[in-house]
Amino acid sequence: MNVDIGNALASVASPGASRESLERLDEQVADAHERIVAGMEQSEHGYEALNLPERTDPDEIRAAVEPVADAEALITVGIGGSALGAATITDALADESDTEAVYLDNVDPEWVSSHLERLPLEETAINVVSRSGTTAETLANFLVVRDAFEAAGVDWTERTIVTTGESGPLRNLADRHDLPSLKVPDGVPGRFSALSAVGMVAAAVCGHDLEALLEGAAAERESLTGSLFDCPAYAYGATAYALDQRGAAVNAMVPYAESLETFAEWFAQLWAESLGKDDLGQTPARALGVTDQHSQLQLYRAGPRDKLVTFVSPGETDDRSIPDTDVDELAYLGDATLGELLEAEFEATEASLAAAGRPNVRLELEGVDEYELGGLLYGMEAACVLAGELYGVNTFEQPAVEWAKKATRGLLGGGDFEEADAVAEKTELRIER
Amino acid sequence: MNVDIGNALASVASPGASRESLERLDEQVADAHERIVAGMEQSEHGYEALNLPERTDPDEIRAAVEPVADAEALITVGIGGSALGAATITDALADESDTEAVYLDNVDPEWVSSHLERLPLEETAINVVSRSGTTAETLANFLVVRDAFEAAGVDWTERTIVTTGESGPLRNLADRHDLPSLKVPDGVPGRFSALSAVGMVAAAVCGHDLEALLEGAAAERESLTGSLFDCPAYAYGATAYALDQRGAAVNAMVPYAESLETFAEWFAQLWAESLGKDDLGQTPARALGVTDQHSQLQLYRAGPRDKLVTFVSPGETDDRSIPDTDVDELAYLGDATLGELLEAEFEATEASLAAAGRPNVRLELEGVDEYELGGLLYGMEAACVLAGELYGVNTFEQPAVEWAKKATRGLLGGGDFEEADAVAEKTELRIER
Repeated sequence: MNVDIGNALASVASPGASRESLERLDEQVADAHERIVAGMEQSEHGYEALNLPERTDPDEIRAAVEPVADAEALITVGIGGSALGAATITDALADESDTEAVYLDNVDPEWVSSHLERLPLEETAINVVSRSGTTAETLANFLVVRDAFEAAGVDWTERTIVTTGESGPLRNLADRHDLPSLKVPDGVPGRFSALSAVGMVAAAVCGHDLEALLEGAAAERESLTGSLFDCPAYAYGATAYALDQRGAAVNAMVPYAESLETFAEWFAQLWAESLGKDDLGQTPARALGVTDQHSQLQLYRAGPRDKLVTFVSPGETDDRSIPDTDVDELAYLGDATLGELLEAEFEATEASLAAAGRPNVRLELEGVDEYELGGLLYGMEAACVLAGELYGVNTFEQPAVEWAKKATRGLLGGGDFEEADAVAEKTELRIER
Repeated sequence: MNVDIGNALASVASPGASRESLERLDEQVADAHERIVAGMEQSEHGYEALNLPERTDPDEIRAAVEPVADAEALITVGIGGSALGAATITDALADESDTEAVYLDNVDPEWVSSHLERLPLEETAINVVSRSGTTAETLANFLVVRDAFEAAGVDWTERTIVTTGESGPLRNLADRHDLPSLKVPDGVPGRFSALSAVGMVAAAVCGHDLEALLEGAAAERESLTGSLFDCPAYAYGATAYALDQRGAAVNAMVPYAESLETFAEWFAQLWAESLGKDDLGQTPARALGVTDQHSQLQLYRAGPRDKLVTFVSPGETDDRSIPDTDVDELAYLGDATLGELLEAEFEATEASLAAAGRPNVRLELEGVDEYELGGLLYGMEAACVLAGELYGVNTFEQPAVEWAKKATRGLLGGGDFEEADAVAEKTELRIER
């Protein structure tokens, strides 16, 4: 991953960071880097995630998925960080796989049913992921999926892989049924676990190159130095932080490849859940190039000056030529390929924001493959950890989601929780048709 | 559509609007309503969109799609407002249709190719939509699709429906090949055209009830009165505006149904492109309940106080029970259904934001069907038109997207444009690995 922050400089954009202010910020980056390195060396909670390129064992993952290596489809049952890393990888590389990867990361009954009715269950594998083994959405869906397999006469115990913590209901289940199982690594929060078994079981079932994913991440790790001017990941994290300080409260992530749409979702979780605390944090918005030029660009270029736009340029991909046309007005299209049109649209949009003084940053990949993806995921995680140090927040916790979990449990009769009582006290001001 | 703005009141949330301030704002709403009604009566540009429930002729649309009424798949070639309205409807109702609706709303070559290779072209219909008939992305994709049909030996002229303006290359093409064609209605910007042929051709091919869509919209239209306290659409538009004025620069749209995920994208275009101008406008963020409770909720509850969260409660849907489990900790799940879990999670999340003083609004549907969808789309359009009046912006234009269009065309050799030259002058500050 390379990064170009030229269009976020104060000489181009407002808000923007001057070169001098970035040099001053670089002193904080150096201190933060020391803290990060110490955390990695001590395997501290969260920082340990940046050690995954060395810790994760691809052979162990491949061995666990071996019984279902020829599955036509894979249902991953997980939510949040237990699904998004895996989905980012398999969606990005879907063209390279014969296995359809499906993610049950919601509890919508119609939608769950439509998947279970559609998939050939006897050729489908199940990948259930929950660190605690008690996540309500994941366990509910897993119970439903298991039941559907039984109803179809398919032995789910032959087709299920479990990724969970050292103990808990899912671990017990894996032991009882002798299921292949992997461990969620200690010290790695879900949103930082893409490069562990949590994110890589699905990649393994889909036949992707696990070593290349880890090698790409390791190369990014090698680039972690004490200066934002030498390290793409830190350049991104520091620039995003500096721009937020100057008013860019929103960070719009805009990949120019359909295959990276899920990456924008993964980034949105990483950024929101890690940095959104203590009334701080930059709000991620997910968008997609070229599509959102016809949707969000008006706002990005002419709305409030409260946004940083992050483009992801995917580099070389397979191309397809645009057939000639006899319509004069459109003849210019016939000399191009779809890839050239995509590239021209990207450069034009980037320049259009710069021309309007709107800050933007470019993340550059050299194609969408395992190696580049590994680098991208690791680079964004390192950028996020750096930003967390600069904000001074506890990057690796997510205390604000506990309230709703207790209320949900209380509402369903799973115990007495005062949070559930608060639900009944809602202030209403209803306007009815 | 009913609306509950109780959790956006200043007595609950900060930022929040006091009941008194809403009463004062209601005087502006009354004035804006007069302006809107006059615009509708005069069929003025933009305002005309609110007349679509009476203007759109379902019989004409059904007649146009009759030759492909039994298609297994439908490729809609369009971008922005030429795709999102149609996609919102067919995605919301996908469970009710045997026709797969695919949207080519991007120019990514790998992704376009993967669709064309996968679909049974001899059983596939084409729906090409562009008001001008010159939209680069749409025309490029249409040329590619046409070519793929020819290469497969399928006569595309037998399987194509055109929706375009009164003149232009697509109109000429329709005339030359005698294709069934429909007209993009005058005075209706793309993002407001869901309830015209632009949004309803796909619904017709997929067999949905066009009359019910229009009836739902007409009922919403009936509710447009001069007060936000009597009209759900105005209640929403005025509350969103009032909250933005008080610091809620971001509007997170969170439907609690997978089938409404595309609705959040449609809303994001409507809101961004209509209101994002003159350095004004609220930034839409799209999210999905329950999924994003495990991603964005931490930020929404504990990050900056710059957000309004809009929930969409879908009402009754098909349900699915959660099988019993012998695990004590999870026994409470076995007494519930997935739908009850979804509902409990929604109520818990809404209450969790209110308990933290974070403003939120609830849009309530009575199920996801044509009638309710028609009401939802119309209601949000009316809310947006009202908000545009309150902001004092030109709701129906999108001037900021022109720059990039010219630059793209210039880069591809389609003429001399100074915008294209600006692309080459990019300020670089690259950090390489």
